[in-house]
Amino acid sequence: MTETITTPPGATRRRGEQMIIDCDIHNVAMPDSIDPYLPNKWLQHKRTYGSRQHSGNVYPKGSPARWDSFPPSGLAPGADLDFMRKQHLDELNVEYGLLGCLSGAGSQLNPDYSAALSAATNDWQIAEWLEPEPRLRAGLIVPAEHSQHAVAEIERLGDHPGFVQVLLVARSTAPLGNRKYWPIYEAAARHNLPVGIHYGGGVRGGPISAAGWPSYYIEDHAGMSGAFQAHVASLIFEGVFEQIPDLRIALIEGGFAWLPPLAWRMDKQWQRFKSEVPHVRRKPSEYVYDHFWVTTQPIEEPHRRKDLLTVFEHLGGVDKVMFSTDYPHWDFDHPLHALQVRLPADQRDKIYTENARAFYGLPARAA
Amino acid sequence: MTETITTPPGATRRRGEQMIIDCDIHNVAMPDSIDPYLPNKWLQHKRTYGSRQHSGNVYPKGSPARWDSFPPSGLAPGADLDFMRKQHLDELNVEYGLLGCLSGAGSQLNPDYSAALSAATNDWQIAEWLEPEPRLRAGLIVPAEHSQHAVAEIERLGDHPGFVQVLLVARSTAPLGNRKYWPIYEAAARHNLPVGIHYGGGVRGGPISAAGWPSYYIEDHAGMSGAFQAHVASLIFEGVFEQIPDLRIALIEGGFAWLPPLAWRMDKQWQRFKSEVPHVRRKPSEYVYDHFWVTTQPIEEPHRRKDLLTVFEHLGGVDKVMFSTDYPHWDFDHPLHALQVRLPADQRDKIYTENARAFYGLPARAA
Repeated sequence: MTETITTPPGATRRRGEQMIIDCDIHNVAMPDSIDPYLPNKWLQHKRTYGSRQHSGNVYPKGSPARWDSFPPSGLAPGADLDFMRKQHLDELNVEYGLLGCLSGAGSQLNPDYSAALSAATNDWQIAEWLEPEPRLRAGLIVPAEHSQHAVAEIERLGDHPGFVQVLLVARSTAPLGNRKYWPIYEAAARHNLPVGIHYGGGVRGGPISAAGWPSYYIEDHAGMSGAFQAHVASLIFEGVFEQIPDLRIALIEGGFAWLPPLAWRMDKQWQRFKSEVPHVRRKPSEYVYDHFWVTTQPIEEPHRRKDLLTVFEHLGGVDKVMFSTDYPHWDFDHPLHALQVRLPADQRDKIYTENARAFYGLPARAA
Repeated sequence: MTETITTPPGATRRRGEQMIIDCDIHNVAMPDSIDPYLPNKWLQHKRTYGSRQHSGNVYPKGSPARWDSFPPSGLAPGADLDFMRKQHLDELNVEYGLLGCLSGAGSQLNPDYSAALSAATNDWQIAEWLEPEPRLRAGLIVPAEHSQHAVAEIERLGDHPGFVQVLLVARSTAPLGNRKYWPIYEAAARHNLPVGIHYGGGVRGGPISAAGWPSYYIEDHAGMSGAFQAHVASLIFEGVFEQIPDLRIALIEGGFAWLPPLAWRMDKQWQRFKSEVPHVRRKPSEYVYDHFWVTTQPIEEPHRRKDLLTVFEHLGGVDKVMFSTDYPHWDFDHPLHALQVRLPADQRDKIYTENARAFYGLPARAA
């Protein structure tokens, strides 16, 4: 028997089941959803020129959604708030859900259009997602390759309580420690916002792997962690965290078992190459431990389940690990099945709710 | 007191010290060393046009050598066989040493020149390294991006007892599973030669990381493992090992702590993406375990030394791990200090000599 209690307003909980803070939910804009939020000039631009961005990949073709996530309303998966409430937020005891609206608004090649579309997407998120549903928070969409516009958007909405991080994607024109992105990080830190780097994005000016163009999507998917590795190295070796000590980064949907070996490798090389990067004052792994958080989906699956505990141990514990489902995408992780290892209750609570609560500054659960 | 015994001809051993098979030694050609082996047409080409290849990186600038490896003869580090004998082969009890002559001969943009320079380099290796020094073996240099020429070189010298692998570099124009490279693998397998993929190579048609151009050499160096990861995924997902089941690959100077997390990730995704790669019949990790070997230098240095044992465990044991020093390069690993964990004697023997002996088909040690 399940009895529901309300905590906080809007959240329902089945007594005895694990509450979760879901750090990766995708809300989707229908082709015309954003139109009412676009200035007329850019609406005409959209209708005349449409989207121009570096091409990317999704699987399955056209929609990365779970087969059961198509709402009866006929809207796209992730586009129907009512259906998301029932199928996901209520059903899975989601205390808070973090939206990542990856519509490509922030990836447009036209800088002014990218700025306008990002702003419209954020306004749409406020009006149609954040205000109607108190369990939801969102990543602020910014035109990341055009940092002056990105900064303006952070200044405009960075203090809105619904936006709890600045959202970037893993495919960028340069490794994300590049100085052209620093104004974005400075603005995020000014507004006490972490920066989330999410799987995906278009192909920007180069092959999708460190070794050229792969033939198959599965290589692209397996290789995305390579982009994350390059970003972590870049953010550290460029000295971003010396310049902006309050900057915190969430690596979303990028995996994390590769992070300890990368930290070891960077520490070893830094012993030799310090002179090239004198602005890097500490061992690279110390920046990893102090500045990076990770989300769980797609959860790492070592061949022996218990080796996940070893991975956590190499990460320095579970304090930086935050649960995510990736709803409504096909590779969704269910909270009951994602972590196939036994963890003490306090560690489970950290992963499922408390790490994300602290990281994103989410209010404590009502008693 | 050290007493020397001769095993096999040419090898000396200090009693009680660890013999090694060193899987990564770099012999170097002086600017004019190869000239006598080049047909006159290509010698004139060399003198007129010089080297044209994608640009790469070395550290320190100009020479990646140990400060103490400059021979008194005035030749470049790695260019003086007598000095290499004394400083390295004798001093470190090298039973066999595998040469990787990374002069760029195989990376020339001009296909015919690349073929000629590769052939001349191999002839030079036979005459000036392999014949004078029975402890040495070499990787066959091939113009990898021009596979018909590479195949011709493998047919020409693949059965020479001095060449024990076909040598490629990690920076290629496409991930190394791409079908354009298959003729090379087929030729290698016909001659019972494994293929070594070595750190380095020029930048070929795209940024050096999966996320664009990094600002610092240290990022490039840390990121090289990203290229190796893309190659492993590519070789597996293209189905190379189904087509050429005898193909064996050595990953040289690429690290290996990243390999188990990659195997886990590929296995997980293969469950979902099988239909895209129906030619991949087995779990990706099974190809990893059956077809890939790794060399030790630069040895992984987990923060807790004993975690290296965990890495070995995740690799399925030490049977695929082969010792290497990278002599005479700056990041040389000394056999006494490389493995900072206690291993049973049989496992040490596997790493220091027996895995490489079996992999490269090297004759057993004289009694």
